[in-house]
Amino acid sequence: MSDATEEGGLYPPERVARAQEAARDAGLDALLVTPGADLRYLTGYQALPLERLTCLVVPAEADPFLVVPALEKAAAEASPAGRLGIEITGFAETDDAYELVARRLPPGTTRFAVDNHMWAEKLLAFQDALPRARAGLAGDVLAGLRMRKSAAEVEALRRAGAAIDRVHRRMGEWLRPGRTEREIARDVADAILAAGHATVDFVIVGSGPNGASPHHEVSDRVVRAGDPVVVDIGGTTPDGYCSDSTRTYAVGEPPAEFRELYEVLQGAQAAQTGAVRPGITAQELDAVGRDRIAAAGYGEHFIHRTGHGIGLETHEEPYIVAGSARPLEPGMAFSVEPGIYLPGRFGARIEDIAVCTEAGGERLNLTGRDLVVLPA
Amino acid sequence: MSDATEEGGLYPPERVARAQEAARDAGLDALLVTPGADLRYLTGYQALPLERLTCLVVPAEADPFLVVPALEKAAAEASPAGRLGIEITGFAETDDAYELVARRLPPGTTRFAVDNHMWAEKLLAFQDALPRARAGLAGDVLAGLRMRKSAAEVEALRRAGAAIDRVHRRMGEWLRPGRTEREIARDVADAILAAGHATVDFVIVGSGPNGASPHHEVSDRVVRAGDPVVVDIGGTTPDGYCSDSTRTYAVGEPPAEFRELYEVLQGAQAAQTGAVRPGITAQELDAVGRDRIAAAGYGEHFIHRTGHGIGLETHEEPYIVAGSARPLEPGMAFSVEPGIYLPGRFGARIEDIAVCTEAGGERLNLTGRDLVVLPA
Repeated sequence: MSDATEEGGLYPPERVARAQEAARDAGLDALLVTPGADLRYLTGYQALPLERLTCLVVPAEADPFLVVPALEKAAAEASPAGRLGIEITGFAETDDAYELVARRLPPGTTRFAVDNHMWAEKLLAFQDALPRARAGLAGDVLAGLRMRKSAAEVEALRRAGAAIDRVHRRMGEWLRPGRTEREIARDVADAILAAGHATVDFVIVGSGPNGASPHHEVSDRVVRAGDPVVVDIGGTTPDGYCSDSTRTYAVGEPPAEFRELYEVLQGAQAAQTGAVRPGITAQELDAVGRDRIAAAGYGEHFIHRTGHGIGLETHEEPYIVAGSARPLEPGMAFSVEPGIYLPGRFGARIEDIAVCTEAGGERLNLTGRDLVVLPA
Repeated sequence: MSDATEEGGLYPPERVARAQEAARDAGLDALLVTPGADLRYLTGYQALPLERLTCLVVPAEADPFLVVPALEKAAAEASPAGRLGIEITGFAETDDAYELVARRLPPGTTRFAVDNHMWAEKLLAFQDALPRARAGLAGDVLAGLRMRKSAAEVEALRRAGAAIDRVHRRMGEWLRPGRTEREIARDVADAILAAGHATVDFVIVGSGPNGASPHHEVSDRVVRAGDPVVVDIGGTTPDGYCSDSTRTYAVGEPPAEFRELYEVLQGAQAAQTGAVRPGITAQELDAVGRDRIAAAGYGEHFIHRTGHGIGLETHEEPYIVAGSARPLEPGMAFSVEPGIYLPGRFGARIEDIAVCTEAGGERLNLTGRDLVVLPA
């Protein structure tokens, strides 16, 4: 819950100016950014999302400023945002903070953009305060900045990857026949924190037929000998970056058909992580795995996209998905997580975070990808 | 991260129908509710907030339905929402989910309301898909339901209160001179989980002058002998309800003036918790404490409202604040947390969650309110 850590490398001061330039290029009059990953990215300020307005205002043609409740002013000034040299304005409990922002925007403001996760109550209040302006999404502008990670950000993701790898390496301590998915997940959650994460973001333990539902979380199903078990876990490190890695385990010897399926999946996922390089498009990278899985007869059972970008959020741009002609660039970080799901029977998924580098790609998750058969 | 727990008492099935009735009374054509506390309240479904749309649609005059990504359909059906007898519709990755919702709303839809925390990207997409309709906030309708807690909800808040009380009782294990606020906060966070919370929502450790900033979180300041320390902590229990309690400690004997200030505050806070009863208004309850603090000469140093409602969110209706003529009713649960802050020197705050009952009020935090002086 700290927002005052010194992270100069992770949160360099020039980002607000770069966002302003990008807003200008996009023909926007102003960006309005409330607490969340965009605000943290731009200023390093990890503000709590509260009903009172906290908002970074970035006019295209004037100085940016940060509006905060008077109560939060000291905290904002003490945060990394206090070292950016931008004005921090507190407002009293009885002030209309939205009017305050509207009055300070240039009179001819006709297009403003808000962070994609701004709460509806705040967006509607800005729409009321700026009745002649049209609202759009700042994500279109900020994603372009956020998805090209700096070396310091890649290093933060590498630390997050190493932390979640430590949890996967211990899976045999908890994943045993006779225990429920929920009991196992509780132990895994403790281990995610112990491994150096500040928060547990998700713990999916999908055993047997539950593994065939990609977004199943946990249930009271008891793990049985012979079950394949999909374990997809992630957290956020104290410096704000996310981990996310999936391994599929077998508890005792699994059915022969599962081994066949797993081998196909492993080959597809390895081909995909090996194909990461600057210039390959998101849809081409998706196809590298999809084509192999289809050729083996499992095409209809790979029912989701290959992956999602990752950074200050677990899911962000770029998405590795059919239909996206976006070419990968050095610094982009994303999951590579094909899966094969046989409804009512079992499923498998293997997921690594990969970073596109000048030379090709780097995997940030380094636990083995061969099927791990745990004692039954 | 479970959404499949059996919590019939906490999440009774009639809430969607009650929301529909309230929407009709408010002249709305439909409510649109995305993942978050409102969705969990109405359906028991603890859906993850994802970029893909998950939305409960409650038309005023037609059957409600739940729209989910095809990938999430099995999880939604397995959640408590699957037992409500409402239609669950999956959409494919290539479908436009917003158009799908718009097409199914009655043709004459002119007013729809969205949950207050719906992401801007989703609200803007609904505004595009329903260009002739006006968007408002469902919170105006749903807060009326959510703020009147059922007996099962009060019991869940009582459990949450007991859990955070267990953490306060152990404060002497961690709060010692020579340790930084951050070190102390880390231990407190571990204890919040160990006490039975599923997540740590916030840990404020404000020592010495930091205690004078009400929303200070933690810093690297080293606690010194004689420091007053404000400790404001909370988490969310596995069944979704939040805890929030503040105690102010002294590490060794504090300055005499602090003892005076604390005594004033303690009297004010006790008067306020004692004044809780059906019919008293939020502003009257605020004044009970504010007047006493002002009479003792500290009026300008009580710089925030008395409290906020609590339930599935830490901050929700009703707010206990000057200007609110809302009369309290049985089942309303909220914090009573006056504070006195001397800038640059120290501060104190005492916070209990209170529930308005037929007979008066009940405190859900039961650790002592006398100043606890820990060994220096």
